[in-house]
Amino acid sequence: MRFLFLGDMVGRSGRNAVFSALPGLVADYRLDFVVVNGENSAGGFGITEDIFRETLSSGADVVTTGNHVWDQREALEFSTRQERFLRPLNYPKGAPGNGSGLFEAKNGARVLVANIMGRVFMSPDLDDPFACADNLVSACPLGEQADAIILDFHAEATSEKQSMGHFLDGRASVVVGTHTHVPTADDQILVGGTAYQSDAGMCGDYDSSLGMEKEEPLNRFVTKVPRGRFEAAQGPATIAGLAVEISDRTGLAEKVSAVRIGARLKEQRPDFW
Amino acid sequence: MRFLFLGDMVGRSGRNAVFSALPGLVADYRLDFVVVNGENSAGGFGITEDIFRETLSSGADVVTTGNHVWDQREALEFSTRQERFLRPLNYPKGAPGNGSGLFEAKNGARVLVANIMGRVFMSPDLDDPFACADNLVSACPLGEQADAIILDFHAEATSEKQSMGHFLDGRASVVVGTHTHVPTADDQILVGGTAYQSDAGMCGDYDSSLGMEKEEPLNRFVTKVPRGRFEAAQGPATIAGLAVEISDRTGLAEKVSAVRIGARLKEQRPDFW
Amino acid sequence: MRFLFLGDMVGRSGRNAVFSALPGLVADYRLDFVVVNGENSAGGFGITEDIFRETLSSGADVVTTGNHVWDQREALEFSTRQERFLRPLNYPKGAPGNGSGLFEAKNGARVLVANIMGRVFMSPDLDDPFACADNLVSACPLGEQADAIILDFHAEATSEKQSMGHFLDGRASVVVGTHTHVPTADDQILVGGTAYQSDAGMCGDYDSSLGMEKEEPLNRFVTKVPRGRFEAAQGPATIAGLAVEISDRTGLAEKVSAVRIGARLKEQRPDFW
Amino acid sequence: MRFLFLGDMVGRSGRNAVFSALPGLVADYRLDFVVVNGENSAGGFGITEDIFRETLSSGADVVTTGNHVWDQREALEFSTRQERFLRPLNYPKGAPGNGSGLFEAKNGARVLVANIMGRVFMSPDLDDPFACADNLVSACPLGEQADAIILDFHAEATSEKQSMGHFLDGRASVVVGTHTHVPTADDQILVGGTAYQSDAGMCGDYDSSLGMEKEEPLNRFVTKVPRGRFEAAQGPATIAGLAVEISDRTGLAEKVSAVRIGARLKEQRPDFW
Ligand SMILES: [Fe+2]
Ligand SMILES: [Fe+2]
Ligand SMILES: [Fe+2]
Ligand SMILES: [Fe+2]
Ligand SMILES: [Fe+2]
Ligand SMILES: [Fe+2]
Ligand SMILES: [Fe+2]
Ligand SMILES: [Fe+2]
Repeated sequence: MRFLFLGDMVGRSGRNAVFSALPGLVADYRLDFVVVNGENSAGGFGITEDIFRETLSSGADVVTTGNHVWDQREALEFSTRQERFLRPLNYPKGAPGNGSGLFEAKNGARVLVANIMGRVFMSPDLDDPFACADNLVSACPLGEQADAIILDFHAEATSEKQSMGHFLDGRASVVVGTHTHVPTADDQILVGGTAYQSDAGMCGDYDSSLGMEKEEPLNRFVTKVPRGRFEAAQGPATIAGLAVEISDRTGLAEKVSAVRIGARLKEQRPDFW
Repeated sequence: MRFLFLGDMVGRSGRNAVFSALPGLVADYRLDFVVVNGENSAGGFGITEDIFRETLSSGADVVTTGNHVWDQREALEFSTRQERFLRPLNYPKGAPGNGSGLFEAKNGARVLVANIMGRVFMSPDLDDPFACADNLVSACPLGEQADAIILDFHAEATSEKQSMGHFLDGRASVVVGTHTHVPTADDQILVGGTAYQSDAGMCGDYDSSLGMEKEEPLNRFVTKVPRGRFEAAQGPATIAGLAVEISDRTGLAEKVSAVRIGARLKEQRPDFW
Repeated sequence: MRFLFLGDMVGRSGRNAVFSALPGLVADYRLDFVVVNGENSAGGFGITEDIFRETLSSGADVVTTGNHVWDQREALEFSTRQERFLRPLNYPKGAPGNGSGLFEAKNGARVLVANIMGRVFMSPDLDDPFACADNLVSACPLGEQADAIILDFHAEATSEKQSMGHFLDGRASVVVGTHTHVPTADDQILVGGTAYQSDAGMCGDYDSSLGMEKEEPLNRFVTKVPRGRFEAAQGPATIAGLAVEISDRTGLAEKVSAVRIGARLKEQRPDFW
Repeated sequence: MRFLFLGDMVGRSGRNAVFSALPGLVADYRLDFVVVNGENSAGGFGITEDIFRETLSSGADVVTTGNHVWDQREALEFSTRQERFLRPLNYPKGAPGNGSGLFEAKNGARVLVANIMGRVFMSPDLDDPFACADNLVSACPLGEQADAIILDFHAEATSEKQSMGHFLDGRASVVVGTHTHVPTADDQILVGGTAYQSDAGMCGDYDSSLGMEKEEPLNRFVTKVPRGRFEAAQGPATIAGLAVEISDRTGLAEKVSAVRIGARLKEQRPDFW
């Protein structure tokens, strides 16, 4: 199974880059399943239902999020209707929407996708991501109810991300991090067969501060006094993510490659498709 | 000028990999100047004077550190004698040792090297890294007293790292991050001419948790109860860092490439030397 | 029912003050039930089984703890045997020891005692304290299986502590905070009938830094470089805590008063007993 | 000299309680100097120039602030004109307004007032509060250019607050904490003669979450999903602060007492005036 993950789309630049490029990638690589993180797609803050729909139209099967999930208040509502929209799974019981779902890929495979948020330096108020991940893969194990399991682990600390990778190693197809908006160069298949990358990076303008215009963030670091608002950067975007060839037999990863296309970063494409 | 930076050496595996590989890299690439971060070289925690000396013998011109600088108590003493050993510059007045220094490269260039620590999610008790960096490059500007300026910015948050890159863009030759122990794939020349990478990654065993044996870190994430100690991982190490061709005329970057050699990560070498 | 809570005993000074004073307080006030927080009683770091036993001998019915619970490694063992020893309840399943228990008071009342840890600025890795508290009082409600419910909420942030008070207001007899080692002057009966104090304060030497010798903590704030170890302060201790008259009929609070006896702080004793 | 400090006024309830009570307190106690923290006086978020002026009219000599200083954007402007308005002193150079000032008390004494912000759990981006405090009292020492020195240390952690008290002990008249919105019962004269209280508490409605309506803060702790906005609580307010008799000869404290008047908390007034 051919799987592609794209990291946080940031603002108009990031989402338009995805909307332009994704249909071609799906066709060229004959992708079976695509997940895109959309938590910053509406001007950097959250996501609207329209953007969510256009992301699906462009070729995504599922849209994940993170700490910005509720920035656009309409997400509190449409998350309850849209099954292909995921908020972090480790919200307490009663939170709107879903944190995971079982979906059918183009090749017929049953793909379990989950979005979990880390706690270190981030969200001490969410439930234990490790217990949450354990419940997830226990309830719907790889090779039994699921042919592939994808986790978007939205977290800050590399320690927590690596431990999650090891924790699910052999029990998930892919553990890919998001949230730092910078792609890491540690894409690899862990010893148990799980594809892993600490962070997919963002789809956005890399001449920026995390995809936002760099002036105001820098002003705050230097003067500590707010002068304006944070605005999404408008320059050309790089698409960043992870491509994984998942075994149809075991559900584990056979090949993995970071993906970086466009603008400022060194181009990287899977050489196995 | 040919410059190489190597990220945090972790434990015996990481430092031996550097000690083995660095002499060859210096020779093969005819490197003019090498900086290595050594804050985790003594079993993961700090650095001894012996390890410091061997790092120089292997080809490093300067050793930088970070939050682990004082883990080995002898560093409080030898840091006051060893000018090629740097602790974070933004310690308050009166701290032992130096945070920056002006050194001569093999090609005769005067190279200003500084080690500064970030504060976001990290070290709220250190002085302002931005004011500190500003003082540094103002006192010894590129193209005047310095032919090249190298900053090892030891920090956690990508937002702070990117802002530091933009802050010094055009005023420093290289701003390279350390501390997360994961190399980022955003090595680039910023619009003003400064070579930048959010994190150089570590020199260590990548089948690990940040270079440490993965069992106990994972145990703590899962059970929250300590069971043992943190020990450096023993598996084969990947060397990770950044190679920069610095203009002899302007002191700015002409070419930049991440470096990853050995073991688990995708190999990357500069193609311009 | 006459209930007394005493905050974190710190080091020899703090525990000896409790061991000296508590028998007299139990006798003079004819106390029915006493809870003492012991997380810092062994030189400031954790608690030994001997100290635990002596605390019971002095008149405590239950000893609670907090983030320092495992500082003395023997606690990992004796916590599994000693039912009157409580570690934070919101450790994940499988942690040694117990986080709550139902005990009989001198007047025959069934007293549910729990120790829960906050997460803000503290322990993002523990389970949700609010869900945990809700489960606790739902499983053993006041007026049904329990005649009194006491919560030692070991937390840093006043926002989290006050919200816990309001959350359990009317469902618990007492919600008393610990951890900051400074008594607050907001002891009161909340609108629903629960006795509340943001922090009981410590039993220890108040000419100190949180009960520890003040020199090294101050040195670290000023120089940021460790010079020595943290040692418990040796000066005369103040006992600090909360006295509550709990209704035998409703299990709610009828009278509440902070308690401060000895040394540097303004003396405060219940005027209703 | 008779000095009164009042903690953070929160919203209409808190500021009206101060506006009603302060003129009487000034008259009854023949106060020589009054400082009031106003960082939450405008609906909980910042302060307007009108509220600032009315606070002075009510009897305050100086208004201090804290992390909420810029919540009302007009403060960026009026802080540059109003000398009796203080923002935290440890903002970097170039920040609007002043962090300290020398003022004349009713008895003719020269009173140095400063507002400094802590960093632990709070504001890692501000300058070192200890170095800042040291500069302050070195430049204008007690008994030389200043007859009294008052520090409002706006900080979260009791460890940092106590260390600041010890750091300035004997060099300042008063070190009083703010920010937690809960009064502490550790008002005392330190061994060197400085009056100290970890937190003055707030002037506001104590049937609340830090002076704000308790429903939404509790909702966020329980559900982690925002439902509404934070609004200042409307119930009757308690005034909370610290009264200090300062020696006209030494500038050190002779007598100290917490002050709590009105509504839910136990009343406390100085018994020495
Ligand atoms: Fe994001
Ligand atoms: Fe995020
Ligand atoms: Fe490191
Ligand atoms: Fe580090
Ligand atoms: Fe404690
Ligand atoms: Fe504690
Ligand atoms: Fe406040
Ligand atoms: Fe504040």
